[in-house]
Amino acid sequence: MADMYSTVAWAKTSADSKFSEIKIKRNVAGEHDVTFELKYCGICHTDVHIANNDMMSTKYPCVPGHELAGVVTSVGSAVTKCRVGDRVGVGCIVDTCMACDTCDKGNEHMCPKEMTMTYDAEIKHGHIKTNTGWTLGGYSGSQTVHEKFIVTIPDGFPLEAAGPVFCAGITMYSPLVQWKADKGGMNVGIVGIGGLGQMGVRLAKAMGNTVTAISTSPNKEAAAREIGADNFVVSSSPESMAAAASSVDLILNTVAANHDLNTYLPLLAGGGVLVQLGLVLQPHSVNQIGLMMRKLSISGSLIGGIPETQDCIDFCHKHNIVPKIKTVTWGDLDQVYLDLSSKNDSIIRNVLDIEASKAA
Amino acid sequence: MADMYSTVAWAKTSADSKFSEIKIKRNVAGEHDVTFELKYCGICHTDVHIANNDMMSTKYPCVPGHELAGVVTSVGSAVTKCRVGDRVGVGCIVDTCMACDTCDKGNEHMCPKEMTMTYDAEIKHGHIKTNTGWTLGGYSGSQTVHEKFIVTIPDGFPLEAAGPVFCAGITMYSPLVQWKADKGGMNVGIVGIGGLGQMGVRLAKAMGNTVTAISTSPNKEAAAREIGADNFVVSSSPESMAAAASSVDLILNTVAANHDLNTYLPLLAGGGVLVQLGLVLQPHSVNQIGLMMRKLSISGSLIGGIPETQDCIDFCHKHNIVPKIKTVTWGDLDQVYLDLSSKNDSIIRNVLDIEASKAA
Repeated sequence: MADMYSTVAWAKTSADSKFSEIKIKRNVAGEHDVTFELKYCGICHTDVHIANNDMMSTKYPCVPGHELAGVVTSVGSAVTKCRVGDRVGVGCIVDTCMACDTCDKGNEHMCPKEMTMTYDAEIKHGHIKTNTGWTLGGYSGSQTVHEKFIVTIPDGFPLEAAGPVFCAGITMYSPLVQWKADKGGMNVGIVGIGGLGQMGVRLAKAMGNTVTAISTSPNKEAAAREIGADNFVVSSSPESMAAAASSVDLILNTVAANHDLNTYLPLLAGGGVLVQLGLVLQPHSVNQIGLMMRKLSISGSLIGGIPETQDCIDFCHKHNIVPKIKTVTWGDLDQVYLDLSSKNDSIIRNVLDIEASKAA
Repeated sequence: MADMYSTVAWAKTSADSKFSEIKIKRNVAGEHDVTFELKYCGICHTDVHIANNDMMSTKYPCVPGHELAGVVTSVGSAVTKCRVGDRVGVGCIVDTCMACDTCDKGNEHMCPKEMTMTYDAEIKHGHIKTNTGWTLGGYSGSQTVHEKFIVTIPDGFPLEAAGPVFCAGITMYSPLVQWKADKGGMNVGIVGIGGLGQMGVRLAKAMGNTVTAISTSPNKEAAAREIGADNFVVSSSPESMAAAASSVDLILNTVAANHDLNTYLPLLAGGGVLVQLGLVLQPHSVNQIGLMMRKLSISGSLIGGIPETQDCIDFCHKHNIVPKIKTVTWGDLDQVYLDLSSKNDSIIRNVLDIEASKAA
């Protein structure tokens, strides 16, 4: 892995800086690698946290973006997954040890030697290279990764809406499958009707479940019902919560701010499972007797492996589940980040249009 | 439900009293009821907590005992489950609403209108009666319950060892089934090698799993291996814990004192489940990110329903799983309670011999 090439990227150079256009370098595709020209990259709320150094560990320049979609421009001689001209994408993972049982089973996200995240992560497994020494994400002109981390975008699926499937989509799809909601017939609750929640509602519905949307905002009801929710619960209303008590088999909780998970346990039927999906830093206080009396479970989940991500976009395509998106160009990034920081009240995902950004 | 009959019982009349022999009254068997002469009743650690008023809600006189085994002496005209002379038992439940979906599905222990525990519980559903107005347990000469709560003891299973199956046995069996360890092929960890733990090790092993016994006491290793444990982990030893890291798919934790459940999470493999089974009052502090990174779950479980309890003793009989017990008479109860209060270091279950107690 020696040769490098240059491409454009949009970066923050410090927590307080605005976005600027920079040049970055990536490795030329080796034997097992795929290079693709980026066309779109979704903007995830996590991007805001990392680019703004909210976890105090961000390396700058920081090029965010882990919802990449584009067209293959070059493949290594051993690559079998795709060819030049194919539409492909990359999600949150760009490298792992690729030598352990967990990776072999397609659970790259749980690699005990640690997955390498798509941006702002130390490069430690050696299958990827940048000029900075850490990963640089999808707000850029081109990406090169080992073919293992490539997802194929089904023919006909809108390229601009593919990226969010690799993050928001798989984040909801994986626990639905793990907890058997893909067999249908359950009552699935989705807490938080934002970027993740909209995918959760659609996926759970398409799998054949009754879907209960749960939100603090009564004004989300129309949007939730429009995308398939059968029931709507206002979590800040004791009456609404009481009316839905013990009715839900599986709750996927997308809330990413500190909160009390015990709020949601009364909604679970006996044997029910609450899956926590958000980046919540404050520990929860959990009463064991409460779990015992009704055989409840509290679980966590974080994205999914690559084969499951492929399943997810194939499922979305088959069931016509297309994230609602709005394209922006790089000049809009500062305002989009401000909007995401101040409120997260929209079910529309912003997507960076790379071609338009290059031309801007 | 009018006619009552008298029988002997052994009770505590206050938290500080010693056991004494008293007379109690129970309802004569109605149309759907079964009366059986008690032969044995297991002594559970919970009996000590309740009889000693540790939860500050005990009603006196308190007749403990929820591991009943005996021989049917009378059945109502509509009873189909058993006949006079049959060997039967009762566990922790003697009444429920019997009108809800949960009860219909055999999950009587999760009846939303609340199961009635076998002793010291308010009688609220009306299918049972005593002279005190609350339930009186198995340290007595005879019991009458609706046939729904009767478990049949398989021919050849030792009557004196049946009672502990209805409490310790089902407490371990139910989560093993819920989490699919009954299909075999998992690595099942059992924390605490006492009355519950011994049943957990035997059941998990007989189901075809690898069993990892986990204890703070290195001196439990021989006993754990003798009953079938493949591995032994000393939870107070960082080396022993590190050597077993990420190796266990399902942990059944029998610890009933306040503890930090986070101790056990590193033992779980990705996707693993920790099931808490003990009467632990202090809430746990649970870090959501830890659960998310490896898709771990924290669950609780409490006994099981009646059909599953029947399955449990049938399974025990088929696989020759017989709890290790020691019989005592009522004059021994005060000392047994003192021993259980001061330490819980034995895998042998004390069982009250009712016939011998009557004669004493």
